[in-house]
Amino acid sequence: MTAPDSPTALDLPPVDPLPPETQKYFDLCEEKLGLVPNVLRAYAFDIAKLDAFTALYNDLMLAPSGLSKLEREMIAVAVSSLNRCYYCQVAHGAAVRELSGNPMLGEQLVMNWRIAEFTARQRAMLDFAAKMTEASHRVEEADRDALRAHGFSDRDIWDIAAVAGFFNMTNRIASATDMRPNDEYHARAR
Amino acid sequence: MTAPDSPTALDLPPVDPLPPETQKYFDLCEEKLGLVPNVLRAYAFDIAKLDAFTALYNDLMLAPSGLSKLEREMIAVAVSSLNRCYYCQVAHGAAVRELSGNPMLGEQLVMNWRIAEFTARQRAMLDFAAKMTEASHRVEEADRDALRAHGFSDRDIWDIAAVAGFFNMTNRIASATDMRPNDEYHARAR
Amino acid sequence: MTAPDSPTALDLPPVDPLPPETQKYFDLCEEKLGLVPNVLRAYAFDIAKLDAFTALYNDLMLAPSGLSKLEREMIAVAVSSLNRCYYCQVAHGAAVRELSGNPMLGEQLVMNWRIAEFTARQRAMLDFAAKMTEASHRVEEADRDALRAHGFSDRDIWDIAAVAGFFNMTNRIASATDMRPNDEYHARAR
Amino acid sequence: MTAPDSPTALDLPPVDPLPPETQKYFDLCEEKLGLVPNVLRAYAFDIAKLDAFTALYNDLMLAPSGLSKLEREMIAVAVSSLNRCYYCQVAHGAAVRELSGNPMLGEQLVMNWRIAEFTARQRAMLDFAAKMTEASHRVEEADRDALRAHGFSDRDIWDIAAVAGFFNMTNRIASATDMRPNDEYHARAR
Amino acid sequence: MTAPDSPTALDLPPVDPLPPETQKYFDLCEEKLGLVPNVLRAYAFDIAKLDAFTALYNDLMLAPSGLSKLEREMIAVAVSSLNRCYYCQVAHGAAVRELSGNPMLGEQLVMNWRIAEFTARQRAMLDFAAKMTEASHRVEEADRDALRAHGFSDRDIWDIAAVAGFFNMTNRIASATDMRPNDEYHARAR
Amino acid sequence: MTAPDSPTALDLPPVDPLPPETQKYFDLCEEKLGLVPNVLRAYAFDIAKLDAFTALYNDLMLAPSGLSKLEREMIAVAVSSLNRCYYCQVAHGAAVRELSGNPMLGEQLVMNWRIAEFTARQRAMLDFAAKMTEASHRVEEADRDALRAHGFSDRDIWDIAAVAGFFNMTNRIASATDMRPNDEYHARAR
Repeated sequence: MTAPDSPTALDLPPVDPLPPETQKYFDLCEEKLGLVPNVLRAYAFDIAKLDAFTALYNDLMLAPSGLSKLEREMIAVAVSSLNRCYYCQVAHGAAVRELSGNPMLGEQLVMNWRIAEFTARQRAMLDFAAKMTEASHRVEEADRDALRAHGFSDRDIWDIAAVAGFFNMTNRIASATDMRPNDEYHARAR
Repeated sequence: MTAPDSPTALDLPPVDPLPPETQKYFDLCEEKLGLVPNVLRAYAFDIAKLDAFTALYNDLMLAPSGLSKLEREMIAVAVSSLNRCYYCQVAHGAAVRELSGNPMLGEQLVMNWRIAEFTARQRAMLDFAAKMTEASHRVEEADRDALRAHGFSDRDIWDIAAVAGFFNMTNRIASATDMRPNDEYHARAR
Repeated sequence: MTAPDSPTALDLPPVDPLPPETQKYFDLCEEKLGLVPNVLRAYAFDIAKLDAFTALYNDLMLAPSGLSKLEREMIAVAVSSLNRCYYCQVAHGAAVRELSGNPMLGEQLVMNWRIAEFTARQRAMLDFAAKMTEASHRVEEADRDALRAHGFSDRDIWDIAAVAGFFNMTNRIASATDMRPNDEYHARAR
Repeated sequence: MTAPDSPTALDLPPVDPLPPETQKYFDLCEEKLGLVPNVLRAYAFDIAKLDAFTALYNDLMLAPSGLSKLEREMIAVAVSSLNRCYYCQVAHGAAVRELSGNPMLGEQLVMNWRIAEFTARQRAMLDFAAKMTEASHRVEEADRDALRAHGFSDRDIWDIAAVAGFFNMTNRIASATDMRPNDEYHARAR
Repeated sequence: MTAPDSPTALDLPPVDPLPPETQKYFDLCEEKLGLVPNVLRAYAFDIAKLDAFTALYNDLMLAPSGLSKLEREMIAVAVSSLNRCYYCQVAHGAAVRELSGNPMLGEQLVMNWRIAEFTARQRAMLDFAAKMTEASHRVEEADRDALRAHGFSDRDIWDIAAVAGFFNMTNRIASATDMRPNDEYHARAR
Repeated sequence: MTAPDSPTALDLPPVDPLPPETQKYFDLCEEKLGLVPNVLRAYAFDIAKLDAFTALYNDLMLAPSGLSKLEREMIAVAVSSLNRCYYCQVAHGAAVRELSGNPMLGEQLVMNWRIAEFTARQRAMLDFAAKMTEASHRVEEADRDALRAHGFSDRDIWDIAAVAGFFNMTNRIASATDMRPNDEYHARAR
């Protein structure tokens, strides 16, 4: 049986005590975000796995890129909506609301991203991410050229693919383990 | 325009020269596998991304787990077949043939994993990975309990979810960038 | 070209002035809800259509029934989520938050109703509504018997079917005309 | 247990006796159509519901519109075919045969509306109705513009959306309750 | 350009004159059925192909089998309905009406075979044919055992598979070439 | 219970002894192919069925046509991949490898035919075969015109349709009976 505050349906309690580096990182999250995201608590049963996940996540979402942080979060929510991942829609929906200052944009990406008012460039970016999510085997050169026609470089295309790919991973891990988002996300930036 | 031997359709040449650590890792691949997998060459335009990918991959596929290496490769091929990812079916199909010593098993996982002769435990594992791939939002406690009934621990369930999730990421990145597998895989372990 | 505050993408301005009965009804909405729902404004180009829609809506959602008002709103959001109707998810998501006093329930029904914590009876009700939405031609006596086994009467089954059917209509009309919900819904009952 | 001649699988006998207004309406149906449509008998357990349904139906299918009555029936059959609703294909297939004087047109709309010989305008109308039925969340301004290019006014677009939406409701209510059409429809206008 | 009475959209006129054996067969059709089925006229551009098709068809539909001729026609219509093949629904729908003496049964198989009143044995037969049509790769031993449990022999299972397979072929050839059924079928056995 | 070397899951032993003509044909297979294809052994429980199948197969795959034998095998593998038929992917994948002298082409057609390097003409041919396989009811004149634009004659279009249709039949019969390919195919032409 899982602990009452387990972040998933699996009985995988965190390493106790956490290694100092991990504890420091969690404290930093608490300080900056006001919470330790449950996904990190879920991975904390195995610090090597936690570190690998965190390194990949931080590179994708925070490292320099031709895509803004908001654009990466927009991909996160659109992909998570197509996969109907509760955790990621909640957590990254909040991020879109915060980064955009537009609460409705977060809702639109969750509910039906096609009806949001984007630039043509952003729409092309989300069309590509959606095709990758729904039928990646049908992606062809014409799809990459459509991105290039909106000014995306090949490096940008990689980043779109990498972010959209990443959420197709985490959406599935979250749903497969019934991972639950921190309650605090719900009311943020409404 | 991409270089003639570019591993993807994107014009993202590797860092040149590679950092010594990376070069050493590639040399090790060459020595152990007889090739540097094209996926590593594809990521080599950005060493931070390459390292993050490699760390995650090695933890998932090689670290200790209740799943054997062959079982993890079986998940890889079944998921990649559902997503029709050419790169991953070729590379991991070869791995299944090699690890199992059963060339037909590799083909069956590529062509229609349901008709392969598995243990009931392995079948349950692949059923779960397939549901995660095709409709992760429909995974419920009953699905996890079906795994537990076959003797999988909660830690094993995490590993199944993590491996199946991972290939749902890489399948999409590979297809989105038209990543091509090394030719050498095709004839191996036939 | 549509007026700036047109509730849909169609150029169908309301009858002007509204008939006294209609104006009175809109005033009542304003008083009770703090807004005139855009769907009513959308229909106001033809008072016979508005009245027919309103009569059906009020009977379904407000008349006595074995289903509580909250349960009817839960069906509304689950169906609208499956159809990805922006208008109805926003408006009825707000209603679920208000009637339940549980902001997370509204989000869960929008994002993936299967992961919400319902009674078994409510889950059966939503399973039926979902099957009607996704594959109504596959509904058979066994599906109705599943509802009866949870204590629903034949009259209750009719009401579930009628409410789920209704939102399959309005979801489509709203999406087909790009109907937009009143901004006020977004922040309510968070 | 339902009565032998119950129009649905639900045990919901009609109000007995029917109110004079309802009886008069049923008598008029008998006189004009040679039968009381089973859908009206099905709703007769609750006269408020029957009246709301009838008012909406008559407005949509019989009130003045830029769409002819035959065109509205064509939408009815095409939508009902996509939803595989037995009741509505039978009843409205008969209406198409009668109104068009073309028995084959009724069959074609039931079997595969794409192969019928329509005017380009009618084909565009049915393409829109089909998209609304199968993937309403993907309808965008380009779809409405395609209708406008064939001479449909914004009011006509509303009417197409309203009729297609309506049958997406009734198809589901009919299938959910196993509503059966009057036998008399089968042989009509062959 | 195809001839005005071409049975398909392809310009493939019949061998002229037909070989005596073929002419004799067509005369026999005319005499027994009152028409030469358009599918035979469509194949008559190449007598070897016509003969191969006819031999297979006659063996499947007319040779001794544990399935009655009506049961084989029921499979034909259910499969053709799932594939929405106009030619085969018209021609074999007429055959079901004639062989069963039940005009409604033909309609039900065209519109939604699940709502027809079958014996449990016939329902199992059609469930198997439908699964073969929609997702043949998911057929497993349990599906064959379900047929055996209803008294079907392994030879009967072969015949169900062969008939359902055959119509999955002809449905596609007919749709791919826009093959049109003889007008005479429409009014028969109503 | 089926015999240990039964080519399917059905207990349908071959006629014993085989008629001289059949035995001669099987001997010829053994001599030319090094094996008697299991599909022929599967049909040998009824010589009339075997002969009808063989006649159709040989006409489609071996008779003169505007499509080369390799092109017909390419259609066979692409269709069989879409239907995930193990038998046909194995047997016809080997044929593509042999006829093309390109082992990778066989793999590509099995794994995701869209990423293989075809001529535009071959790609159009496979696009048509795939549409026939996945949604034959949506094939329209524009699809046939796309083939004509690549130089296919109406007779060629018939042949594409007939080959694609045929494998939609055999794929389903093979999967429905769990037909297994001869082991020898796996290692051929790698």
